[in-house]
Amino acid sequence: MKRFVDLAQLSRAEIASLLALASRLDAHPEPQALAGKILGLLFFNPSLRTLASMQAGMARLGGSSFVINPGHGTWHLETRTGVTMDGLAAEHVREGVPVLASYCDVLGIRAFAEGRDLETDLRETTFNQMASLIEKPLINLESAANHPCQALADWKTLDDLRVPNTAKFVLSWVYHPRALPLAVPAATVHMAALRGMEVVVLRPEGYALPRAIMDKARAAAALSGGSVSETSDRVAALQDAHVIYAKEWGSPEHYGDAQGEAKLRASLTHWCVRSDWLGRADASCRVMHCLPVRRNTAIADEVLDSSCSIVQRQAYNRLPAQMALLYRLLRGD
Amino acid sequence: MKRFVDLAQLSRAEIASLLALASRLDAHPEPQALAGKILGLLFFNPSLRTLASMQAGMARLGGSSFVINPGHGTWHLETRTGVTMDGLAAEHVREGVPVLASYCDVLGIRAFAEGRDLETDLRETTFNQMASLIEKPLINLESAANHPCQALADWKTLDDLRVPNTAKFVLSWVYHPRALPLAVPAATVHMAALRGMEVVVLRPEGYALPRAIMDKARAAAALSGGSVSETSDRVAALQDAHVIYAKEWGSPEHYGDAQGEAKLRASLTHWCVRSDWLGRADASCRVMHCLPVRRNTAIADEVLDSSCSIVQRQAYNRLPAQMALLYRLLRGD
Amino acid sequence: MKRFVDLAQLSRAEIASLLALASRLDAHPEPQALAGKILGLLFFNPSLRTLASMQAGMARLGGSSFVINPGHGTWHLETRTGVTMDGLAAEHVREGVPVLASYCDVLGIRAFAEGRDLETDLRETTFNQMASLIEKPLINLESAANHPCQALADWKTLDDLRVPNTAKFVLSWVYHPRALPLAVPAATVHMAALRGMEVVVLRPEGYALPRAIMDKARAAAALSGGSVSETSDRVAALQDAHVIYAKEWGSPEHYGDAQGEAKLRASLTHWCVRSDWLGRADASCRVMHCLPVRRNTAIADEVLDSSCSIVQRQAYNRLPAQMALLYRLLRGD
Repeated sequence: MKRFVDLAQLSRAEIASLLALASRLDAHPEPQALAGKILGLLFFNPSLRTLASMQAGMARLGGSSFVINPGHGTWHLETRTGVTMDGLAAEHVREGVPVLASYCDVLGIRAFAEGRDLETDLRETTFNQMASLIEKPLINLESAANHPCQALADWKTLDDLRVPNTAKFVLSWVYHPRALPLAVPAATVHMAALRGMEVVVLRPEGYALPRAIMDKARAAAALSGGSVSETSDRVAALQDAHVIYAKEWGSPEHYGDAQGEAKLRASLTHWCVRSDWLGRADASCRVMHCLPVRRNTAIADEVLDSSCSIVQRQAYNRLPAQMALLYRLLRGD
Repeated sequence: MKRFVDLAQLSRAEIASLLALASRLDAHPEPQALAGKILGLLFFNPSLRTLASMQAGMARLGGSSFVINPGHGTWHLETRTGVTMDGLAAEHVREGVPVLASYCDVLGIRAFAEGRDLETDLRETTFNQMASLIEKPLINLESAANHPCQALADWKTLDDLRVPNTAKFVLSWVYHPRALPLAVPAATVHMAALRGMEVVVLRPEGYALPRAIMDKARAAAALSGGSVSETSDRVAALQDAHVIYAKEWGSPEHYGDAQGEAKLRASLTHWCVRSDWLGRADASCRVMHCLPVRRNTAIADEVLDSSCSIVQRQAYNRLPAQMALLYRLLRGD
Repeated sequence: MKRFVDLAQLSRAEIASLLALASRLDAHPEPQALAGKILGLLFFNPSLRTLASMQAGMARLGGSSFVINPGHGTWHLETRTGVTMDGLAAEHVREGVPVLASYCDVLGIRAFAEGRDLETDLRETTFNQMASLIEKPLINLESAANHPCQALADWKTLDDLRVPNTAKFVLSWVYHPRALPLAVPAATVHMAALRGMEVVVLRPEGYALPRAIMDKARAAAALSGGSVSETSDRVAALQDAHVIYAKEWGSPEHYGDAQGEAKLRASLTHWCVRSDWLGRADASCRVMHCLPVRRNTAIADEVLDSSCSIVQRQAYNRLPAQMALLYRLLRGD
């Protein structure tokens, strides 16, 4: 494995091997495995779990890391090509990214969606441009339409809790004051489909996931014997659900149009996972979220504080999952 | 010792043992003592000494650290319970704090006073809420009404310089353009009382420390044979003083009322430690301050740059004191 | 070597020894050379390469580092002496710098020019004041009128690429939307002169480098058999050039007068290195820049993306050059 940019670039066997390595490193620390190795972290967007778990994971394996936050101690970086740079950005990623890569053994980059043009974001224009600039091992720490580290940790969480591969997995849209990117819903629906689950995307009208995302998930389902469907019928969707994965995202129909989107979203504040959502679900139903989650906006206190919630376990699993990635990328074995 | 949240939770013997460990680690480095261990640092408020000395201390012992600054590379965290999170904060400490704790072996948290309601701050509502969310070893890096790391370093400084346990210790209010928290005065008066000193709190009218803080210090004095009194008579207070500990704090009587407080404070700019303050003090009198200090506002250049000032030694002692804490929390022995 | 503040404080033999050490450490890693050592980094100004390469270099040698960014997680620091601190800055460098130095084995400080008074900046008033406060090994990470780490890396780059010591080296002014400091041009002209090169400073009228900078470079040239001249005649300057080092700087004649400077600079946007600049240059001519560079403002895409550009190599060389510095400062041998 040379880079970890999209879970879809790995076979199911490779994923299984990574997950096994994650569990092994969690149970049997190898504090010298990456001694002398350096992880560079470039965050164009804020972070909590990713920042802390990447640094902690590298340290647990004996390595070191440095962090660059454009706009916070570092100037802004330009990502557009061919422009005359007479504005805010003092440096172009064409210089900045290869330079940072040259100082480390593996580079992680977080670059959220621009949120202006849907196709541009779905094509991962910005992330792919940066990725094309370097040869070093690379980790996608969340891009416009992907979050493979989260997907890997979530897969591990489902395995840890012995949620059957074929269980019903409902990815449910939930409310947020603003339109959020498609990265986590795209990664999640693909991950669950590739795991072989019965995936249902539950979302209000206007929030259907883009066809490219659904097609990719369906292709994964076809490989694994899973299925992918979508609906706005909450009662039907939640019936016998084994997993409710709550996630906020913006309307693809109003992509880049914050005002139009706000109107659509204004009437949807009741899309908050409350305990009554669990009424028809399977008795062992788990509630997932990638975090950060706005309490009582996306998920109610009563659910987050109940034993149904496994959000803490998801977040913790970022650590061993990423330790496995770092180990594999830097040692190969 | 499972956590270090308040010096008052330690016996005098435990403090003596920590101080001995601090001196030992300062004199005889143990560069592998905490190899493989990780310190998580969560700063809700700015820091210089604490940030640098915690990271340096961990590194001196062979461990690593990561830093999370909500508002600087990480989104804001909500601390209020039960609220509908539709504002600035993207994540609640109920998620964020346990997640960060799960990535490290010991977590340090800095969370200054809210400065709205005195009782809320004196009860350490915010810090205690966060502390209750985790099981991991925890260090208070300054909370609403406490700063035990500073108190421990200051105690070591007094010992290093052989200031007698029974010497006269004057905690003097000094001017600052704004009302500052009660954390350091509260920790300082308690520390000096527990050390057995003759503690005098010197402050203008309106700046008497809250009864809870004074009562706690008096209880400590009772244990140690020290005493605690307060006065606004500077001449009497400074007479034969062995230590003048300068500190800025806001009027408890106007807590949360910035305008009312500003009126009271406007006439108090002469509360700046100048060389004439030392006229009646003991010839060996030391001037202390926890830093950051505003020169010529709280303490004059002529005092800070004289041999009376031991503020650099106080600041340096943060390092060995915290190394001892980390060592004790993570190794136990 | 006790500190690395100005390349001019080193003999040519010492520089040659540092460059040899840099190459050795690049080729033969010594991952335990600085085990247990700590680098403190104090950045008053933003950074990308310096921040990442200093941390990476320390880690490659087995050491650790901490970073303090006043204004980003740390309060602002006052640098003026004798002032009554009732404004933004909460702490004075007279406290902050010695405290940080006491926590580490070597301290690096970045403090750009104030840009108000030319003489004050040329005298390095701010940096020298901070340097005078500490005894610890110190590295200048860019000061008002110097950037010795960049100069050392650039020298190594010229050596790596076997650019002859006596080759023609053109330091060319290029456009930037704002007046930038004199640190890099000053360090560059001195470095090239000390290397023995035929240095030509090419700049529009109004942008002649201050006499103190030119005199220092000429003294270096006298030592090495090089030469230093200046001109505004681009055709003559670029004729047979072996190196074009592009750099933005503000007019010394309008120092501290942003409006007056803006008028002068407004007509100079054509000072952008384009491929036609290379027409009369030597066939092997290299284009250098310290980065960050504004594409199509200072240097055109067509040049930066051509094989003439060696900016990536310059940036990479910051790492081994600084590893050599850290090694020499902390081990001596």
